[in-house]
Amino acid sequence: MDARKAADCHVPTLPDWITDAVASVGTLPRRDAQIAFAIDLARRNVDHATGGPFGAAIFDEEGRLIAVGVNRVVPLRSSLAHAEIIALVAAQQKLGRARLNGDGRRYTVANSSQPCCQCYGAIVWAGVDMLLIGARAADTESLAGFDEGPLPEDWTGGLERRGIQVIRDLGREAACTVLKAYAARGGPIY
Amino acid sequence: MDARKAADCHVPTLPDWITDAVASVGTLPRRDAQIAFAIDLARRNVDHATGGPFGAAIFDEEGRLIAVGVNRVVPLRSSLAHAEIIALVAAQQKLGRARLNGDGRRYTVANSSQPCCQCYGAIVWAGVDMLLIGARAADTESLAGFDEGPLPEDWTGGLERRGIQVIRDLGREAACTVLKAYAARGGPIY
Repeated sequence: MDARKAADCHVPTLPDWITDAVASVGTLPRRDAQIAFAIDLARRNVDHATGGPFGAAIFDEEGRLIAVGVNRVVPLRSSLAHAEIIALVAAQQKLGRARLNGDGRRYTVANSSQPCCQCYGAIVWAGVDMLLIGARAADTESLAGFDEGPLPEDWTGGLERRGIQVIRDLGREAACTVLKAYAARGGPIY
Repeated sequence: MDARKAADCHVPTLPDWITDAVASVGTLPRRDAQIAFAIDLARRNVDHATGGPFGAAIFDEEGRLIAVGVNRVVPLRSSLAHAEIIALVAAQQKLGRARLNGDGRRYTVANSSQPCCQCYGAIVWAGVDMLLIGARAADTESLAGFDEGPLPEDWTGGLERRGIQVIRDLGREAACTVLKAYAARGGPIY
């Protein structure tokens, strides 16, 4: 087995349309604008049929966009290629550290939907200070059929006790619209 | 922001010594040999000072080695670069699918230590059928000082109910020896 060759692959890349989607983004200091941007990424990902109905964006404390992600599980054949994971990998690569807030500044992840069990755990270690969430897990499950996996019963408390503030139901209706659009298109569920 | 450039980075690669470590591995159908191999990867990672004291290996149902991983968080500046994540990404890349067992065959992940919250969630989606674990989370925390993060109270049940059999305490003593060696070297805790 050539182990190094197997591991020396590319991180799931973003679709072509991302370049346009982020080109005009200035500073977005407001939470409602940050979540709206993440939800818009999810919407574009559905419209372009380039992955699942999920988007994520990472901002610094001034609201500057650091990195983005959209769900790419099916096109890239990787169960790791969730929107948040792609955004976190890209942000850490860009800032050059494993904990984003290792510079003493504050970082926010805006998620179009509640993180699944995998992304929940990744957010714990990534060095973020705030998590903004659009749709609830119940929305994702009932509207688009996705399974969100086993989370701690008090999952928000698990983050808050580690200094990660959680704000839910931001732009929930818009996020649900994207989930419904995905289901209406018959997008794959996994 | 050049989003595509930021995301178009390499998956954390494995250290040079991996090539030798896997070169002589034949088929390992026995669970005790699979976990011993994962623990040996962890040991080598400590000996070579190439990352944290954790190793993971993925086998198919005949015991053929599919992919390996070791912890590379500090050298690669990525909180995603846990042993299991690297192994799962490499295995999916190699087999060309997001669920390893999408071919109807069975796959095993052997982990030198209990998965943290991030790797727990990743294992849920990766399409594996069996999880072999050496050291317990309590060992990792007490012997090497690592925090394993918030897991569901019944975390083994959360996997078993999804068809992932969990076998703990396999080679636990050997895995603990690696954790102690890491602590004795004063390896970084994160």
